[in-house]
Amino acid sequence: MQRYTAPLNEIRYVLKALDYDQEVASLKPFQDFDLEMAMAIAETVAKICQDQLLPLNRVGDEEGLKFNPEDGSVTLPDGFREAYQTLVENGLMGLTGPAKYGAAGAPETLGIVFSEILTATNKSFSMAPGLTMGLVDALNHHASEEQKEEYLPKLVTGEWTGTMCLTEPQCGTDLGLISSKAVPQDDGSFKLTGTKIWITFGEHNLTDNILHFVLARTPDAPEGIRGISAFVVPKLLDDGSRNGIFCTGLEEKMGIHASPTCVMTMEDATGYMIGEPNKGMRSMFTMMNMARLYVGIEGIGLSEIAYQTALAFAKERRQGRSLNQERQETEEKADTILVHPDVRRMLLNVKVTTQALRVLAAMVGVEVEKSRHHEDEKVRQDADDFVQLMTPLIKSYGTERGFQNISEAMQVCGGAGYTTDWDIEQYMRDERIAMIYEGTNHIQALDLVGRKLALHGGRLLQTFQARAMGELQKCTAHDELNELCGEFQKAAGRLMEVTMMLAQKGPSDPEVAAAVASNYLNLFALTAMGYAWMRLARYAIESEASDVETRLKSARYFAQMILPETGLYKKLCEADKAVMMDFDEEEF
Amino acid sequence: MQRYTAPLNEIRYVLKALDYDQEVASLKPFQDFDLEMAMAIAETVAKICQDQLLPLNRVGDEEGLKFNPEDGSVTLPDGFREAYQTLVENGLMGLTGPAKYGAAGAPETLGIVFSEILTATNKSFSMAPGLTMGLVDALNHHASEEQKEEYLPKLVTGEWTGTMCLTEPQCGTDLGLISSKAVPQDDGSFKLTGTKIWITFGEHNLTDNILHFVLARTPDAPEGIRGISAFVVPKLLDDGSRNGIFCTGLEEKMGIHASPTCVMTMEDATGYMIGEPNKGMRSMFTMMNMARLYVGIEGIGLSEIAYQTALAFAKERRQGRSLNQERQETEEKADTILVHPDVRRMLLNVKVTTQALRVLAAMVGVEVEKSRHHEDEKVRQDADDFVQLMTPLIKSYGTERGFQNISEAMQVCGGAGYTTDWDIEQYMRDERIAMIYEGTNHIQALDLVGRKLALHGGRLLQTFQARAMGELQKCTAHDELNELCGEFQKAAGRLMEVTMMLAQKGPSDPEVAAAVASNYLNLFALTAMGYAWMRLARYAIESEASDVETRLKSARYFAQMILPETGLYKKLCEADKAVMMDFDEEEF
Repeated sequence: MQRYTAPLNEIRYVLKALDYDQEVASLKPFQDFDLEMAMAIAETVAKICQDQLLPLNRVGDEEGLKFNPEDGSVTLPDGFREAYQTLVENGLMGLTGPAKYGAAGAPETLGIVFSEILTATNKSFSMAPGLTMGLVDALNHHASEEQKEEYLPKLVTGEWTGTMCLTEPQCGTDLGLISSKAVPQDDGSFKLTGTKIWITFGEHNLTDNILHFVLARTPDAPEGIRGISAFVVPKLLDDGSRNGIFCTGLEEKMGIHASPTCVMTMEDATGYMIGEPNKGMRSMFTMMNMARLYVGIEGIGLSEIAYQTALAFAKERRQGRSLNQERQETEEKADTILVHPDVRRMLLNVKVTTQALRVLAAMVGVEVEKSRHHEDEKVRQDADDFVQLMTPLIKSYGTERGFQNISEAMQVCGGAGYTTDWDIEQYMRDERIAMIYEGTNHIQALDLVGRKLALHGGRLLQTFQARAMGELQKCTAHDELNELCGEFQKAAGRLMEVTMMLAQKGPSDPEVAAAVASNYLNLFALTAMGYAWMRLARYAIESEASDVETRLKSARYFAQMILPETGLYKKLCEADKAVMMDFDEEEF
Repeated sequence: MQRYTAPLNEIRYVLKALDYDQEVASLKPFQDFDLEMAMAIAETVAKICQDQLLPLNRVGDEEGLKFNPEDGSVTLPDGFREAYQTLVENGLMGLTGPAKYGAAGAPETLGIVFSEILTATNKSFSMAPGLTMGLVDALNHHASEEQKEEYLPKLVTGEWTGTMCLTEPQCGTDLGLISSKAVPQDDGSFKLTGTKIWITFGEHNLTDNILHFVLARTPDAPEGIRGISAFVVPKLLDDGSRNGIFCTGLEEKMGIHASPTCVMTMEDATGYMIGEPNKGMRSMFTMMNMARLYVGIEGIGLSEIAYQTALAFAKERRQGRSLNQERQETEEKADTILVHPDVRRMLLNVKVTTQALRVLAAMVGVEVEKSRHHEDEKVRQDADDFVQLMTPLIKSYGTERGFQNISEAMQVCGGAGYTTDWDIEQYMRDERIAMIYEGTNHIQALDLVGRKLALHGGRLLQTFQARAMGELQKCTAHDELNELCGEFQKAAGRLMEVTMMLAQKGPSDPEVAAAVASNYLNLFALTAMGYAWMRLARYAIESEASDVETRLKSARYFAQMILPETGLYKKLCEADKAVMMDFDEEEF
């Protein structure tokens, strides 16, 4: 029995702290999605996920997938198809898709809530809707109107699912090496040939048809990244016949055993180009950007369920005595382990970082919609800056801390945590891939350091600073927040110092930037989480929340036990790049 | 195909750096075990482990165990029994056991080498000899001569294996809650009844007989930890009949799938008391102390194999271009990923911490023998102080860093690292339990802070300080070591500052010590690893080693990229215990 209750109260709290009604529901497309409506949808999501998907989570892990090499079919464990149908019937597959094509048209903020709960209850399953929504996004931005009308209704209703076919055996991170070919046909279509690997839900039995988004080269395309075009390749063609794209193998993985990771082989598969020739990377990035945010949220969802599991264990398990005599329950043979300082330390590490990351992700959700729909161009730009800057932080740090959090939750449970009985071991295995896919965490760091910092003359960073300093200003009015503000200021100071160093050394020596990127990202992410905690704590005070004392204790914990990590990351960023680059290959 | 070559050159290097011939082989019992002999044995070990155990590692993970509930038998995967026989035939099962009872009588230093290689190649398997040697140790110290003569020859030859039956459903860490009963019989034996859980290799088909070391209470025993006695309970009695101790279930675990973790049920099982009544914890601690050292070594062995795997991947995989044009291999479509700074950073994190931990473990191996066999009482005492102090550090930090190292090695391999193809995922799953068993890592930290620091008026710490400062003194003669010495001094200063704080606050408020213990242990372990690096680097210089440049680069990496972590741990130790203790239970 897995243990989880969707944290709806916490989610409501966060949305209120971020002034959701004013910031999002006031935007024109979202007039029907005020906070009460959003929470009503979240409740539906929670009910379906808890009742149908959570019980399938261990089943999926243990049963795994059935692959038939004869026809390339992949069968998911029993119950998955039915659970998928429930989501479809409740209109959740296209929750945040464009209303024009039959989707619910809910704001991304709600998509994030959906995603957290879905991932927590069944990460393997969650990847099918996740990728489909990514494809919806890419088509909505780059496909022709005709293509949109053909495909989007199928995808947003959940009648079809979507995939993202980028990686090939010789290229993952370095997509310039793609060699799949797309040969133009007289009717305007293309014939695609090549092998794609790591294709999530590339084949399955949730739906009859699957729409593959494929990167490939036309015969006359230039070499490298400038010669990549984007295509859609449906599994079944219009006339119902089978297209030449088949699953020819499944990866054996550490976790997400119910999520098919397919080798896809294309032989003269019919496809249709999306957008302009050789501009495929654009569609890919549209798809990727939101996907990265959502991968970060996997870390939040799995941290939450691991936390709830560990807390349940800590309240039940009796072992040893409180070192504080007043807390001893002398009528029992031992006290619950929640009395022990170290158990509290581990639980609080998980709790306060998960809360901070949830706020940060919700902020990005709010800003995504403002960047798309706000009337004021300056506001839109400002919002987009924030989204662009925070996306790699949430993807990378959300998944890294998520993994660490799950490991800490396991440690709370001792030996029981290592068994399948308490399920945390599955969360750990399922989560680990999130540090790798959709661009490894270091790729996020390079995106941050090599691209986002320099964009528009450093404007993104200024946007973040302006917001964070504005928040700090407001927080200093509250004495209870002195400690948090003080530690935040130190963190922000460290961030600025390293940023200046990068600005000086980076341009002349790109290896310097690459050498510090991962540690710099962590420094930045923790600083941003400090900003999120200021926002949350100030809201608790100003709204006179009933749990304000708990919030202030949590904020204090974050200030004293988490924010100091920024000091270490700064120090590591200051190391000479020579400490790693001076080694010859044979010295490793 | 798993990838591993036992690091024999590195091991030889470490033993020479620690002056093994002078320090160990000169001790009376080890005259036959000079460095050349030790390395010859290590080569035999390496050959058997690489040829027989490594190929069984994935098999063991996938096939797992067969449990027959009808007769309580447990069958290991094919090949395990044969591999065990090979170790027996080569006299390796009793490698470090007492020669008097038929063992090889090799020094513990060599036991540590054996253990590193065995764990790296097959951690599940390694637990059978590991526990047997722990039992040999306990019996050798606490059993009567008659009992020794009866049991030790069986154990050191590998004819029988041993177990450690401590945990019960209601008690793991808190052994005072043990409720298994031992009723005295007229013939001096006892009848034992009760349930033990988490019993590693409690049942298996490697040998016909198994000797269980069991903690239980006699009918008149006082409550709590002072009423626990130790017993041995053989699976088969002298007349070959089956004793009343049966495996009644196996745990389902994240990893070590070929290591049976048994529920053992005793019903009127015949047992024999070891040592005095109610003094069972003494034997347990003897067994536990060496076991803790060996658990730490699991982190080293698995870090090493994960490192070798990741390095092989990094040298083979081509992706992207070096940011340094001179390093670009323009005739290839891409460069190996080893050119990328972040890949180097991850590999070096693993490499230099594994090396430091290996030196530290070998130091403890040397000191164990000096503490037992040196002629001079002061030297013996000094050596024992060092062993006592370092054991919790190696167990806890060795396993924590080991786990982190394996995760970093996986990250080097990207998506491939998450699949079973590159095996790192198994190492990660197998390693995770080491942070929990033989006393969770926090229990090690409490042992350090609550017991070892205070022992003999703080003498253990003084012993460490004297050694480390002596080493520092020698290193300052070498300019090349300035950086390492400087960072080590900072680390040592931090350690002393926190130790003073603990000495002041700890006695009046034990919760303070418990609140900081885990972070303090990490601070201490990293400082000790800095000491190990000074020793290793100085040896490289003074011996004019051919790879002295590589050693100095590695030392520099350790100084700049690892030792600064001590700054964070110090800061975390300084947090007010109230940050975690002020929360009420319902606030979590």
